[in-house]
Amino acid sequence: MTNKKYTVLAGTQNQHKILEIIDFLNLEKIEIKTLNDYKNIPEIEENGHTFKDNAYIKAKAYYELVNIPVFADDSGLRVDALNGEPGVYSARFAGDDVSYLDNNTLLLEKMKDVTQNQRSAEFVSTICYLDKNGAHYFTGITNGEITNDFRGDQGFGYDPIFYLPESGKTYAELSMEEKNRISHRGKALAQLKIFLEKKFQ
Amino acid sequence: MTNKKYTVLAGTQNQHKILEIIDFLNLEKIEIKTLNDYKNIPEIEENGHTFKDNAYIKAKAYYELVNIPVFADDSGLRVDALNGEPGVYSARFAGDDVSYLDNNTLLLEKMKDVTQNQRSAEFVSTICYLDKNGAHYFTGITNGEITNDFRGDQGFGYDPIFYLPESGKTYAELSMEEKNRISHRGKALAQLKIFLEKKFQ
Repeated sequence: MTNKKYTVLAGTQNQHKILEIIDFLNLEKIEIKTLNDYKNIPEIEENGHTFKDNAYIKAKAYYELVNIPVFADDSGLRVDALNGEPGVYSARFAGDDVSYLDNNTLLLEKMKDVTQNQRSAEFVSTICYLDKNGAHYFTGITNGEITNDFRGDQGFGYDPIFYLPESGKTYAELSMEEKNRISHRGKALAQLKIFLEKKFQ
Repeated sequence: MTNKKYTVLAGTQNQHKILEIIDFLNLEKIEIKTLNDYKNIPEIEENGHTFKDNAYIKAKAYYELVNIPVFADDSGLRVDALNGEPGVYSARFAGDDVSYLDNNTLLLEKMKDVTQNQRSAEFVSTICYLDKNGAHYFTGITNGEITNDFRGDQGFGYDPIFYLPESGKTYAELSMEEKNRISHRGKALAQLKIFLEKKFQ
């Protein structure tokens, strides 16, 4: 027997994100489904100009597909010395169908003449929660610095080159638990968690 | 007998904020002290240029005073049609020692020629948590629109003129519980709450 009276869909196809989300959102009354529970999920074109736009585009597409409350996130890295690049293009900075390594390599290349005290950046995650009553947004921000080289082998994406001065580590040197406690996605998920707890009582 | 093994100071002198914080942060193992529990608290000059700077300035000042883990927030309203004003000057938009009514009246006056579809704004709250290991920041953002007139009598500050399309209400028309669920400060506190729960287990 289960206590879980409600179901909410985590609208992401990224297996790394799914792991972080499941680890984080252990809610007493809410079962979190993932897209792994559905078949024939279409590709969704993320053509928004902001994280918020893209999160909504994904949430809306999945909501229309499954018709239960859904959330989707869009996230990325904004580097101050690159005027906020790669931003919404974080996943395809080096082109379509590239690897995390390609993106990281390009970013370090673009930053090679940038001095230590000018390497500040922020990781941003915006979650859009959508149900029949409309949308709610939750944005998590974590500030850090771009390293000069790769450090650590945990996580994914830009994690090996995003350094947190207060931890003395890159994202890729943190355990999933540590990362969830201080990461941009953890901060967005924290807001979603409390929101869901209060909404589905 | 109490389960509360830890103590954290909520570093604010604003009684409205204290009520919202106490209502929100009911943590099993952490007692939240407020500045009401201390005497001779000095005025702190909030001369930072960002919410983050000001939150840190306050957290640091209170931390040096009481020497226990502390958090402080800085928050404000950014109106797109006014290029982000009043921003960090939200509390003193109409001058020093002004009332909420003065600030609201000035803002509506400045917005009187701005059409309905250009009245977007965001409320931002940044919390700085500080202990001997350093600082962590939690930012909550809620998007809305500036009304043409006052609506509602709950809350404080710009609440009567900040309208949430998805709720069909201004902040000042929400109960404290509703407001905490979707407000900028609620979102920042949600992050702090989960952070503290994980940190002080």
